[in-house]
Amino acid sequence: MKVTFQIEGASPVIIECNAGDNLLELARRANVAIDAPCSGNGSCGKCRIRLVEGEVESLQSRHLSDEEYAAGWRLSCNCKVVGDCTVFVPDIASAYQSRMKTADLSSPQEVAIFQECQNQLHASGIRFENPFRAVVLHLSAPSLEDTMPDNERLSWGIREALGVEKVEIPFGVMVHLSHILRQEGFAVCVKGQLLGDAFRCMEITGVADTALVGAAIDIGTTTVTMVLTDLTTGKILAKGSSGNGQIRYGADVINRIIQQGRPGGRKKLQDAIIKETLTPILVNLCKSAGVSARSILRLCVGANTTMNHLFVGVDAEPVRMEPYVPSFFSWEGLLAGDLKLPANPLAPVIIAPNIGSYVGGDITAGTLASGIWDKDEMSLFIDLGTNGEIVFGNRDFLMSCACSAGPAFEGGDISCGMRATDGAVEACTIDKETMEPALGIVGDPDQRPVGICGSGIIDLISELFRTGIINAKGLFVREGERVKRDDHGMGRYVLAWAEESETGREISINEVDIDNFIRAKGAIFSAIDTLLKSVDMTVDTIDRVYVAGGIGSGINMKNAVNIGMFPDVDLEKFHYIGNSSLSGAYAMVMSDAAAEKTAEVASNMTYLELSTYPGYMDSFVAACFLPHTDARLFPNSCRG
Amino acid sequence: MKVTFQIEGASPVIIECNAGDNLLELARRANVAIDAPCSGNGSCGKCRIRLVEGEVESLQSRHLSDEEYAAGWRLSCNCKVVGDCTVFVPDIASAYQSRMKTADLSSPQEVAIFQECQNQLHASGIRFENPFRAVVLHLSAPSLEDTMPDNERLSWGIREALGVEKVEIPFGVMVHLSHILRQEGFAVCVKGQLLGDAFRCMEITGVADTALVGAAIDIGTTTVTMVLTDLTTGKILAKGSSGNGQIRYGADVINRIIQQGRPGGRKKLQDAIIKETLTPILVNLCKSAGVSARSILRLCVGANTTMNHLFVGVDAEPVRMEPYVPSFFSWEGLLAGDLKLPANPLAPVIIAPNIGSYVGGDITAGTLASGIWDKDEMSLFIDLGTNGEIVFGNRDFLMSCACSAGPAFEGGDISCGMRATDGAVEACTIDKETMEPALGIVGDPDQRPVGICGSGIIDLISELFRTGIINAKGLFVREGERVKRDDHGMGRYVLAWAEESETGREISINEVDIDNFIRAKGAIFSAIDTLLKSVDMTVDTIDRVYVAGGIGSGINMKNAVNIGMFPDVDLEKFHYIGNSSLSGAYAMVMSDAAAEKTAEVASNMTYLELSTYPGYMDSFVAACFLPHTDARLFPNSCRG
Repeated sequence: MKVTFQIEGASPVIIECNAGDNLLELARRANVAIDAPCSGNGSCGKCRIRLVEGEVESLQSRHLSDEEYAAGWRLSCNCKVVGDCTVFVPDIASAYQSRMKTADLSSPQEVAIFQECQNQLHASGIRFENPFRAVVLHLSAPSLEDTMPDNERLSWGIREALGVEKVEIPFGVMVHLSHILRQEGFAVCVKGQLLGDAFRCMEITGVADTALVGAAIDIGTTTVTMVLTDLTTGKILAKGSSGNGQIRYGADVINRIIQQGRPGGRKKLQDAIIKETLTPILVNLCKSAGVSARSILRLCVGANTTMNHLFVGVDAEPVRMEPYVPSFFSWEGLLAGDLKLPANPLAPVIIAPNIGSYVGGDITAGTLASGIWDKDEMSLFIDLGTNGEIVFGNRDFLMSCACSAGPAFEGGDISCGMRATDGAVEACTIDKETMEPALGIVGDPDQRPVGICGSGIIDLISELFRTGIINAKGLFVREGERVKRDDHGMGRYVLAWAEESETGREISINEVDIDNFIRAKGAIFSAIDTLLKSVDMTVDTIDRVYVAGGIGSGINMKNAVNIGMFPDVDLEKFHYIGNSSLSGAYAMVMSDAAAEKTAEVASNMTYLELSTYPGYMDSFVAACFLPHTDARLFPNSCRG
Repeated sequence: MKVTFQIEGASPVIIECNAGDNLLELARRANVAIDAPCSGNGSCGKCRIRLVEGEVESLQSRHLSDEEYAAGWRLSCNCKVVGDCTVFVPDIASAYQSRMKTADLSSPQEVAIFQECQNQLHASGIRFENPFRAVVLHLSAPSLEDTMPDNERLSWGIREALGVEKVEIPFGVMVHLSHILRQEGFAVCVKGQLLGDAFRCMEITGVADTALVGAAIDIGTTTVTMVLTDLTTGKILAKGSSGNGQIRYGADVINRIIQQGRPGGRKKLQDAIIKETLTPILVNLCKSAGVSARSILRLCVGANTTMNHLFVGVDAEPVRMEPYVPSFFSWEGLLAGDLKLPANPLAPVIIAPNIGSYVGGDITAGTLASGIWDKDEMSLFIDLGTNGEIVFGNRDFLMSCACSAGPAFEGGDISCGMRATDGAVEACTIDKETMEPALGIVGDPDQRPVGICGSGIIDLISELFRTGIINAKGLFVREGERVKRDDHGMGRYVLAWAEESETGREISINEVDIDNFIRAKGAIFSAIDTLLKSVDMTVDTIDRVYVAGGIGSGINMKNAVNIGMFPDVDLEKFHYIGNSSLSGAYAMVMSDAAAEKTAEVASNMTYLELSTYPGYMDSFVAACFLPHTDARLFPNSCRG
C-alpha cells in the first residue's frame, strides 16, 4: 500500500506501507514533520491532517468538531492505513510551532537585556574578556635566501605580533595554509584563541575580514533562541528564534527520551535539533549580520539536561530512569566540528553545566544572569519553560528543584494554545457583568487573534475565576452567551468567535485546558513551597522573585498570584527578566570569568529531587485549586 | 563511444568517451589502475594493455615486439580511442607494482633489524618509553546515594589509578561512554595518553582488551612498508608492504606533483595513498596481529617531502618550484582521524620532519636509525629509494643532499625491472668465456625469474663491464648468443630466454636500460662527491658507509664500487642497514626520546641544494661512465 503526504508548501512524499500502519509513525519514518507534542497518545490534538483521497480507519477525537471530521480532518496519531490514500499535511510552522523569526535589533528592548546583563555582571566583578583574537600579518614571501616553510613563517609572524611562545596550527587550517598565503600575497588575518602562552589558529582569511563572532544559544524544549555577538565589543549582531524541530517527537522531555531510545532515535533527535533547527537559524543570522559561519569562534548553550544530551548525541535514557544519574553534568573540550554545526569547526562549544537530571544548564546560566548568587537578600528564581525550575537562596547557599509543569506556559497542552508570537492573546480582562472579554494581542493593532499564549492563559483563568465564571476546581458555574457546552457537557469560554479569528476557528478555553493549566500552576507553586520548607523558610523570607522564560514580558504578576501560581508576596518584589538562559549563555560566550562563575555556581547549588521528596505530592494536590485548598496562603487573591 | 576495460581478476568497467580520448587518461578517470611509472610519456613501457575487440589509434612503441603488437598489446599512454573497443588490463599487481605482502615474522631477519635499532639507540641513551597506557577500572554503578555522572565517575577512577590531576574525555569517546559503561557493568579498560599531569582517553573497551599498538610506516615513492608494534614491549606484531598506489600517477615525485596540481588531483593522490594503499595494509596487519584498528594509538611516518605533502593533502607545488620552499617541514598535532586512517581517530600521527624539498622525513628518520649522529667517526649514509639521498657527518655536524636518481634502484625505468620480491633476479655473475649468466633469484629454489631488481641490475652491469661485454659508455662491444640487437641496432643481453622465465617473456637488459642506470648511479656518486667537496673533504675521510633502502640486502658492495656508484673505500666500511626510514619510524613510535632526537637531528642538519650548487652538473656528467671518466678515483674497479 501507498500513502501520499501532500505537504503544504513542499513537494509530496510517498511511502510504501502495510495495512494497519499508524499514520503518524509513517510520517516520522518518511521524515514528514507533523506536530505531535503529546508524542501520539491522542491527548494534544495537534497532529491533524486532512484526508484528500482514499480512506483511513480512525475514531473521531474530541479535538475535532463534526464539521471538521466531515471535511476529512483526522488526528494522524489515531489513523490506521487500510488502503492507498492521500493526506494533506498543514505546514509544521503552525500557530504552536512557529516559523523561524529574526528579531529587529533596531528595537531597543531586544538588545537592552544583554546590556543590562553585562552591567550587572560587571558590578559583580565579572569582566567581559575572552581569549579570541584577530591578528593581521604582512609576511614576506619565501625566496632562495629565506627558505622558511609556510607554517614556520606563519608561526613566527604570530609570535612576533602577540608575544606568545607557541603557535598551534590545527589540521583544518594547515591544509589550506599554502593556498591562502599565496592567494593573499602573504598578507593575511589570523583568527584564533590564546591558550596560556600559546595561540591556536582557527581561521586564516584576507586582511579585510577580522570579524570575531560568538553565538549564544538557548535550546528550550519548545523554542530555540540565539544571538550572534561581536566577541570584542559584546554588541548583539543578530537575534533569532524558532520552534525546536524535535517537537514532532514529543512536547516534553520524557517523550523525547523514549523516542531517542528507539533504533536510530538518537541520530534523529540530534538531527532535529542540529540540522533542522540550529543550522537554519545560524545560517540565517550569519547572513543577517554579514559574517561568515567560520567567523563564529565560540558557542555557548543554555539548555536543560535532556536537551543537552540530545544535542551532543549521548544516550539520555539515564536521565529519566532511577537513579536519575545522567551521562554528564559538564562537558569539556567539545568543538563545533564534533557536532557539524555551521561555525568554525574548531570553535569551542561551552555547555552551561547541568546539576541534575531535571535542573540543567538553562538554569545555571539563568542563575548567573539573575545575579542572585552575589546578593545578601533572599531571592526566588523561577524559570517557566516546558518544565518549571526553581532556585532559592543568596550568596551563601542556593537550592534548586524542577517540576514537571508541562508545556502549558508556552501554549502547549491547551487546545487554542500558542507561543507568544504574532496573533497570540497575551492579556485579557473580562467584564464581570456582561462576561465580555477585552483582549491584548501580540503584533499589529489590527491583528486578529490566532490563539492564546502563556501570559494570556494566566490572565484568562484569573479573570474567569475573579468573575465567578469558573469555580476553584476550574469548572464552569455561570452560564451566558460566551459559555458553551459540548454534547458531553464540557464547558468552554469563547474569547473570539470563528468569524473574528485569524484562523476562522473559534478561540476558546475549555475545562480540560483549565484543568491542565491548574496542574501546571500547582506544580510550580508546590515546588516553591517544598523548596522553602526544605530549608525551613516561608514566603515571608523572600526578598525578590525573578521570573524568567518564554511566557512573555506581558505576564501579569497580580493575576499569577491570584490563581495561586506564585506566592502571595508584595507585587514590587517581582521582576520579569526574560530569557535568562540566553542572557547567561551570552555572558559565558563573552567572558571566561562568567563561564567560570557559572561552573562555580553550579557546583555550589544543591539539587532537591522532588519526585522522592516526602510531602511534595501532598503539596501538589493541595495546590491544584484556585488559588489553593488553603486560602490563607493567598490573602490577596480576589475571588469574585 | 564506449571503452570496456576487462580487468584481470576484477569486474569489467565501462566508460563513455569521445573520439581522440587518450586511453590511459580514460583509465584514470574510470579509476582503473594501470601501471604508468613515467606518467604517460611513453618512456617506461609499463602501461601495456591488450586490445580484445575494436580498434585504437596507436603507434608501435620500442617497448613492444612485433609479436606482441600483432597479439594486440599496446601502450595505453599512446592509444587514441576511435570507436567502441574492449581492452584487457593486466593486474596492476604486476612484477613492478607488486601485491600486498605480509611478512613472515617467524623469520628472524624480519624482526632482528628492529631489535638492533632498539639496542643501538639504547646505547645512545634513547629509551623506548612512551606516554600510552591501558588502565583497567572496576567502578561502582551509580545509585540514589552516589549520583556522580558517568564522565566524572570515569575521571575519578582514572585519577585514582594513574595519579594524574586532569582527565580529558574527547568527544568521540564521550558519546559512547554511557553505553559502554552500562554494557560492561562499569568494569572497563581505558586506553589513552599521558600529557603532563593529564590523561587523554582514547578508547574505552571491555577489561579483556588492553592492547596498545603503534604503527610505523615508510611511505616510499614506489613502495610502502609498515610494522605494527606493541607500544609496551616494542615487539613487532605484524609487518607488510605493497606498492604505492600513486604509481599510476607517475613513478617519480615530479610527475605526481604535476598530477596533484590538476583539478581534483590532490584528493586523488591522497586517496591513492590513504584509501588504496595504507588502509588495506593496516586492515590486513590488524587482522594478522589480532588487534582492533582502534587499538592503534600512535602512528609514525617516514616519507620524503613530496610524499608527506600528498599524504596530508597539502599542495605540493611549492616543493618543485623555485624557491623550493615547501608548506611544512614538521607538522604538530596531526591525528589519524584527520586523515581517516583506520586507526584510533585520536591517535597522533608523527611525521618525521623534512629538512628541504628533497630531503624528507625518510632521511631524518633513517639518520636517527643509522646512529651516525652519535658517533665520532665520519659516516656516509646513502638511502637508495626512488630518489637518492646522502647524509655525511658525525656528532658535530651533518650535511645532506638529494639527487634525482629515478626509480632504477627499485626496478623502475628498466624494461625488465621489478622490486626485490619473489622472482626477482637479485644477484648475477657472468662467465667471462662463455658469457653465460648464473642468477640468484628471490624466493623458492625452483622459482623461475620474473624480472630484475636493483641489486641484480648492479651485479649485471658490473659483470657485463668486467667481462668486457659492454664498454665504459654502457654500449655492447662483444657479440655472442646472449647478445642480441633489434632492427635499430640496439643491443641487449638476455639473462633468461622466454621459455625459462615465469612470464613467458624474455628477460634482458638493453642499452637504454643501461644508460638509465648509469645516469642513476652517476647521480648518486656525483652527489657524494659534491657533498664531500662542500666540506672540503675527500673519500679518504670516510670511516663508514651505511647503505639503506629497498634495493635489497643482497646488494654486492664490491660491484657497486666497481661500476662507480659508491666511492672506492675499503669494503669493510660498508654496512647495509635495510629500510632505515621504517626502523627510524619504529623507534619514533616507541619512544618520545627518539622522536625528539629526530627533530633535533633534523634541525641541526644542513641541506645542500645540488641543482643550484656550482660544479654539480660537471661532476654528474663525469660520473656517467663506468666506473668514471677519472679512473684514478676507482683504483680497485676491475675492468675485464
